[in-house]
Amino acid sequence: MKQLLILGAGRSATALIQYLCEQSQQYDWQVIVADASEPTVAILKQQYPTIETQQIDVLDEEARNHIIGTADLVISMLPARFHIHVVHSCLALRKHLITASYVSNDVKELQADIKSNDLTFLYECGLDPGLDHMSAMKIIDEVKSQGGTITSFQSSCGGLMAPGSDNNPWRYKFTWNPRNVVLAGKFGTAQYLFRGRHKNIPHHHVFSRISAVEVPGYGRFESYPNRDSLKYRDLYGIHKAETILRGTLRRPGFCAAWNAFVQLGLTDDSYEVWNLGNMTYADFVRAYLPYSEDDLVTNFSRYIGTDVTSELMERIMWLGLLDEKPIGMKKASPADVLQKLLEEKWQTQLQDEDMIVMQHLIGYQLQGEDHLSTSSLVVTGQLDRLSGMAKTVGYPLGIAAKLILNEQVTRRGLLIPIHREIYEPILQELQKFGVNFQEMAHPLTPVL
Amino acid sequence: MKQLLILGAGRSATALIQYLCEQSQQYDWQVIVADASEPTVAILKQQYPTIETQQIDVLDEEARNHIIGTADLVISMLPARFHIHVVHSCLALRKHLITASYVSNDVKELQADIKSNDLTFLYECGLDPGLDHMSAMKIIDEVKSQGGTITSFQSSCGGLMAPGSDNNPWRYKFTWNPRNVVLAGKFGTAQYLFRGRHKNIPHHHVFSRISAVEVPGYGRFESYPNRDSLKYRDLYGIHKAETILRGTLRRPGFCAAWNAFVQLGLTDDSYEVWNLGNMTYADFVRAYLPYSEDDLVTNFSRYIGTDVTSELMERIMWLGLLDEKPIGMKKASPADVLQKLLEEKWQTQLQDEDMIVMQHLIGYQLQGEDHLSTSSLVVTGQLDRLSGMAKTVGYPLGIAAKLILNEQVTRRGLLIPIHREIYEPILQELQKFGVNFQEMAHPLTPVL
Repeated sequence: MKQLLILGAGRSATALIQYLCEQSQQYDWQVIVADASEPTVAILKQQYPTIETQQIDVLDEEARNHIIGTADLVISMLPARFHIHVVHSCLALRKHLITASYVSNDVKELQADIKSNDLTFLYECGLDPGLDHMSAMKIIDEVKSQGGTITSFQSSCGGLMAPGSDNNPWRYKFTWNPRNVVLAGKFGTAQYLFRGRHKNIPHHHVFSRISAVEVPGYGRFESYPNRDSLKYRDLYGIHKAETILRGTLRRPGFCAAWNAFVQLGLTDDSYEVWNLGNMTYADFVRAYLPYSEDDLVTNFSRYIGTDVTSELMERIMWLGLLDEKPIGMKKASPADVLQKLLEEKWQTQLQDEDMIVMQHLIGYQLQGEDHLSTSSLVVTGQLDRLSGMAKTVGYPLGIAAKLILNEQVTRRGLLIPIHREIYEPILQELQKFGVNFQEMAHPLTPVL
Repeated sequence: MKQLLILGAGRSATALIQYLCEQSQQYDWQVIVADASEPTVAILKQQYPTIETQQIDVLDEEARNHIIGTADLVISMLPARFHIHVVHSCLALRKHLITASYVSNDVKELQADIKSNDLTFLYECGLDPGLDHMSAMKIIDEVKSQGGTITSFQSSCGGLMAPGSDNNPWRYKFTWNPRNVVLAGKFGTAQYLFRGRHKNIPHHHVFSRISAVEVPGYGRFESYPNRDSLKYRDLYGIHKAETILRGTLRRPGFCAAWNAFVQLGLTDDSYEVWNLGNMTYADFVRAYLPYSEDDLVTNFSRYIGTDVTSELMERIMWLGLLDEKPIGMKKASPADVLQKLLEEKWQTQLQDEDMIVMQHLIGYQLQGEDHLSTSSLVVTGQLDRLSGMAKTVGYPLGIAAKLILNEQVTRRGLLIPIHREIYEPILQELQKFGVNFQEMAHPLTPVL
């Protein structure tokens, strides 16, 4: 009886656990779930009587090695900083490992060891990174197999709210780490390739240098550039692509309103706001605006360059950012203050549905003609049951585990799912769960 | 015979050495100048036969202690990072110390030791910091002695080119560390007080949130906010001032053109430009602009929001920033590239004259009435002889040395020249050298 260990049973592990429980009955596996939280473990045991559960501190080397020692394959859903410990244990105890996290520099250094131990460490096998690799490589490999050349690659992904649940002027709520959302674009210059030109966008213009994205049936979105699009050149082997641009999706108008925060300096996390204890949100904003005898709404909209009644101002005012309401924090950075307000306002409700959106626009040349291939994914899900996020992260991981346990994937070493033998069966099986890329290809001059 | 040691004989030490040589004949002092550079030392000895010179590595503790041991007073013109070594030697050997550098945290910790050893360590006694403290405190103390209250304090200073030598579209050349000029405003948020409100300016808006400054006889300037204006509240004891704003002066139009660099991201020093080896300046700029089929001048001016023939574009094009000229660097940050170009274009000529400009606008209330006091300083000088910079840094230091050696200043401890007994005789004697603040005071409602 094969033992399958899941480390970490947070919110995004729900679909994964459910899937593997079902599969374990068919294939006669034992699923073990270990988590730091006793209550989480207890609830799981109740929900899935067939699984084994264990409360564990993953930093406790003995306990970690003990539980990993019993497994044939480990799936780590732990926060990225814990991974290296799991990696070392898996390597020492010779266990396969799957995770949705990015390949880190420390695991890269162990690349040769992983291979020589005949192990598969499959990283970046969730949504993004994960499904992005699989769905893009499917098209890229198809084009190449027909003798074509990839000429452009544009790809965007976003974790948003489904229609009906996007019921605020931003059409956005937090379904992901709020801190990462508030600090998005803050770390370094966004770099990409566009029509043969390398482009650098300083962080204070990331939200004003956006592009429009249309997903059939779901309307328009906007995409702001991610930090590093250039690495996909080597990763996907698309060295003749003159455009390589990856972005993050929001609903139209979001970026312009967020850019107001950036222009004012409200996303700065490097210093404490002076005299914060006595401030209202209106006071806070005034500290970033030029002095004016006008009212705050007038002053704010003039500085940002929009009308007092614009949709942008609607978004700002709906947040209460211009209200004379005490902030109630003593020491905090501008970003902390902004995050506090957003966490109140962008809270999801139990009945809300989230929506994962991903789209690739892949241009290619085939027998001298230009074509464009579009691949779009939309997955929705109820937050209190199986969210879109949980499905798109969990199913790919679960299917990958099955493929390795059943020896359908025998490739060894440190991998990401860019290999046909990995992505093809995963994408195939995902369709059963409604995780379905809509592909369209048509001749085109010029490539978008 | 009193021994007076000058450590460091760089460009800004010329006026200081000349002044102290003259004074040493009157007061029968021995002036010793020590520098790391043998040629510098040799030239000095030739120029001033009465001084003693020595080539020294100031990091060599034995050599440093030996030479400081012979002195009655030390003036350090060394770069700031060497100061702490000099401080420790002066403290151990019980010698007074004068410097134009900012009070650092490490010397602040020795405050009690300095005082208990009956020593005077006079810091911030050059131009800025230095003359700014003295000239401001003169007015502040006068107002207070009449029973008045300081209600606003605005102060700007700039090292510029004198009329005739400001012969390029920027009316600016490098007379100071180019790196510091290129990275100005990059470090953190500019903070100040304006009409009772605390203001934070994120670094990417420092050059667009400027104020106008007029100096009678010298025309108009613009002032961009310095990083920390708030510390002057305690430093000058102006706790009732509702405006406290310190800035750096440039000629009109400079800041808007510089802001174009900031908006593009060209002042970023945090990463290496991709593929720099093959780039022209035009290629470099294109990497920061949105893609366009238009020519570079059109694309640049549209992005910045100015006309193709505007003065701003005149400044940009005069630099050659839009030229198809190879950069000739292999690995460098955007800021490095910009600095290289500016160093070529903003080079001073031997016959050029520099111009130091400083202005305080100090509002105060006296017997219920509002007044404004203006204090302006303009000092020019030939770069190849005595520059305005050398005079305004060197004379205050030299006069301070005289005051301490002659026991006209007997205050002990870690000081900056905000005390009347220090600034009054310095400002008085400076007039002989044309370093002369023009003061005007008049009733005013409202205060600027």
